[in-house]
Amino acid sequence: MSVTRLLADIEQLGRDRRSGGYYRPVFSAAELDLRSWFIAEAERRGLDVTTDRNGIIWAWWGEPQAGSVVTGSHLDSVPGGGAFDGPLGVAAALQAVDVLRERGVQPRRSLAVAVFPEEEGSRFGIACLGSRLLTGKLSADRARSLTDQDGNTLADVFAAGGLDPNHLGRDDEALGRIGRFVELHIEQGRGLIDLGRPIAVGSSILGHGRWRVSVQGQGNHAGTTAMSDRSDPVVAAAEMVGAVADLAEQIDDARATVGRFEPFPGGTNVIASEVSFWVDARHPHDETTRALVTRIEEACARIAAARGCTVAVTEESWSPTAHFDAGLTRELTELLPDAPVLRTGAGHDAGILAEFAPSAMLFTRNPSGISHSPEEYAEDADADHSAVALADVLEGMLR
Amino acid sequence: MSVTRLLADIEQLGRDRRSGGYYRPVFSAAELDLRSWFIAEAERRGLDVTTDRNGIIWAWWGEPQAGSVVTGSHLDSVPGGGAFDGPLGVAAALQAVDVLRERGVQPRRSLAVAVFPEEEGSRFGIACLGSRLLTGKLSADRARSLTDQDGNTLADVFAAGGLDPNHLGRDDEALGRIGRFVELHIEQGRGLIDLGRPIAVGSSILGHGRWRVSVQGQGNHAGTTAMSDRSDPVVAAAEMVGAVADLAEQIDDARATVGRFEPFPGGTNVIASEVSFWVDARHPHDETTRALVTRIEEACARIAAARGCTVAVTEESWSPTAHFDAGLTRELTELLPDAPVLRTGAGHDAGILAEFAPSAMLFTRNPSGISHSPEEYAEDADADHSAVALADVLEGMLR
Repeated sequence: MSVTRLLADIEQLGRDRRSGGYYRPVFSAAELDLRSWFIAEAERRGLDVTTDRNGIIWAWWGEPQAGSVVTGSHLDSVPGGGAFDGPLGVAAALQAVDVLRERGVQPRRSLAVAVFPEEEGSRFGIACLGSRLLTGKLSADRARSLTDQDGNTLADVFAAGGLDPNHLGRDDEALGRIGRFVELHIEQGRGLIDLGRPIAVGSSILGHGRWRVSVQGQGNHAGTTAMSDRSDPVVAAAEMVGAVADLAEQIDDARATVGRFEPFPGGTNVIASEVSFWVDARHPHDETTRALVTRIEEACARIAAARGCTVAVTEESWSPTAHFDAGLTRELTELLPDAPVLRTGAGHDAGILAEFAPSAMLFTRNPSGISHSPEEYAEDADADHSAVALADVLEGMLR
Repeated sequence: MSVTRLLADIEQLGRDRRSGGYYRPVFSAAELDLRSWFIAEAERRGLDVTTDRNGIIWAWWGEPQAGSVVTGSHLDSVPGGGAFDGPLGVAAALQAVDVLRERGVQPRRSLAVAVFPEEEGSRFGIACLGSRLLTGKLSADRARSLTDQDGNTLADVFAAGGLDPNHLGRDDEALGRIGRFVELHIEQGRGLIDLGRPIAVGSSILGHGRWRVSVQGQGNHAGTTAMSDRSDPVVAAAEMVGAVADLAEQIDDARATVGRFEPFPGGTNVIASEVSFWVDARHPHDETTRALVTRIEEACARIAAARGCTVAVTEESWSPTAHFDAGLTRELTELLPDAPVLRTGAGHDAGILAEFAPSAMLFTRNPSGISHSPEEYAEDADADHSAVALADVLEGMLR
């Protein structure tokens, strides 16, 4: 068995024909199939599988108990995403179990492979939703009331997925079992390409957040309303999008992105009454991210006023820069002496868990340097090499 | 019976909770219910109802024959539209039949009340689709291959609505029956408010068209991609939207609108790979509309190049300025001596039919001056006054 062969079993699930990539939102048919695949693969390895009250799947080698070693990642994807962001870490974890078994390792601690739901936040708008629920960083009340783009509440969607939405929320028992956590992930940048290495140890995750910008104008008929009589929120929001990019470009190492932009009602011959768009902003220094967002808010207010519109900016999520555990990271670099240490601009469940348990990450080379896109990939050899590296790390931690 | 009471019977159909208005796309459940309502009301009046091969409903008083008088409008709406754009003309036509019957009018020609499908083009992107099919201005092949936002083809949707898509297209028999056509419509502007009059006769429809602008960039991860490494089509498209508004503002009496804007794949933490947005452009002089669109195309190409993107602009529909029949318009102003003559910026089936048969329009005062919005309305008295005016006009034409 190899990581690539494991991933081949799921390559047809959640295919997105238009992009040529995948769309696997949490608790969609595709993501449910992926969950079933994971459970079957875990059970095939004799692991004991349970799904907790937040929808996190745990596959145990040994008794579930405090101080266990946990590895894993997620199976959901962004719209138009690649095959590796999430599933690589899950498949590598399964493969690492095989490697440890082949080596005859007798773990002195329990090991769990975990799958976290809604890591991308592509259905309900909050990234790392599963780990935020587990740790209490997201309240159960707020989670239950989140809605997807079709207006379904998270409570209803999770209930349809077999969970009791009344039981969502911080889970001290499950959290207490995580002695240490390691997540392996496809690299979402060019660090390993530039260094000519197949695998890296993570140092930190850029602080990042999401803000929803709602612009209100006056809906009207596109043909009968003179340009001078308009309060068109699409024109105002378009100018705001330009300001978001300009402001981010002025700050070294800052990123700000608008990937979702929704005029309402959205008719071709209708001046919209409202636009919502989302800003994803990140910087290594949290205060700089905050300052950037403040500048964006000021620019939006100025533009709205000039265009006869009003604007409201709402923070939907915020994760401060997460530094992985120094001791654990040192252990990993000693176990993997050829691996450089890289930071990442992408959020991960490991970043959420880092506040609660010593956590670390491994990154696998992505020859395209591109992620959240069908172009993201890993070479077969790098994927297998990653699983062996993960096995090395786990073996060290299980002693 | 009154126009308002007729409209009250359909006020729950196709309600759009979010906007407080309506969404009644062609052959949706709501629009099918509206069709059934119309057929029942026509049959209640003893009219003979047929639906032709393009989905146009004809309710006949007298034998269907060449040289008949036809009135009517449409029942579909834009997303978030009002209750009057379309249904007012249909309800006023039914009410005018009642008025003519009460007056004991014995028509010397046949009269038909017609309902045209997809006038707004809000489902398949081409306005006045029914009258364009009837007149052959839209080819059956092109129509069949149009798709809605869910990817359904027009052929499939029309088939599900009970039509044979192989029989779509120019219908000389149906077209030949239209001796003269009058469409009554809610005013989509402030002309009658400013003049303090309840009803107007139409003179012309502004030339207008729709262009789809597709911007291609490089999809990537919002967190890991430095601003300087991006070819973000959302930023490029946003700048283009600003250029569309600026260029239209520079030309007296021009209008250009972006009401629909769709990044793909549309994830919050994803730099989009592609954006499609639609430009609706209008001006009383067709050559000026064309010149405006050329300037928009040039600006889009310049912006795309500067942002490392590519762009393609495709014309989806084009209607030259339509002048209504001078003789028929004079007749109407003689029959309605208090009615001013106004042009409109909005497209209508009467504008398409004007090339094929003497056509005219009546407009009913809209106290909000706003259309394609829930705020559009007509006072009860104005609606009834309109039906009587339409009856006066029809009576004159039926002699």
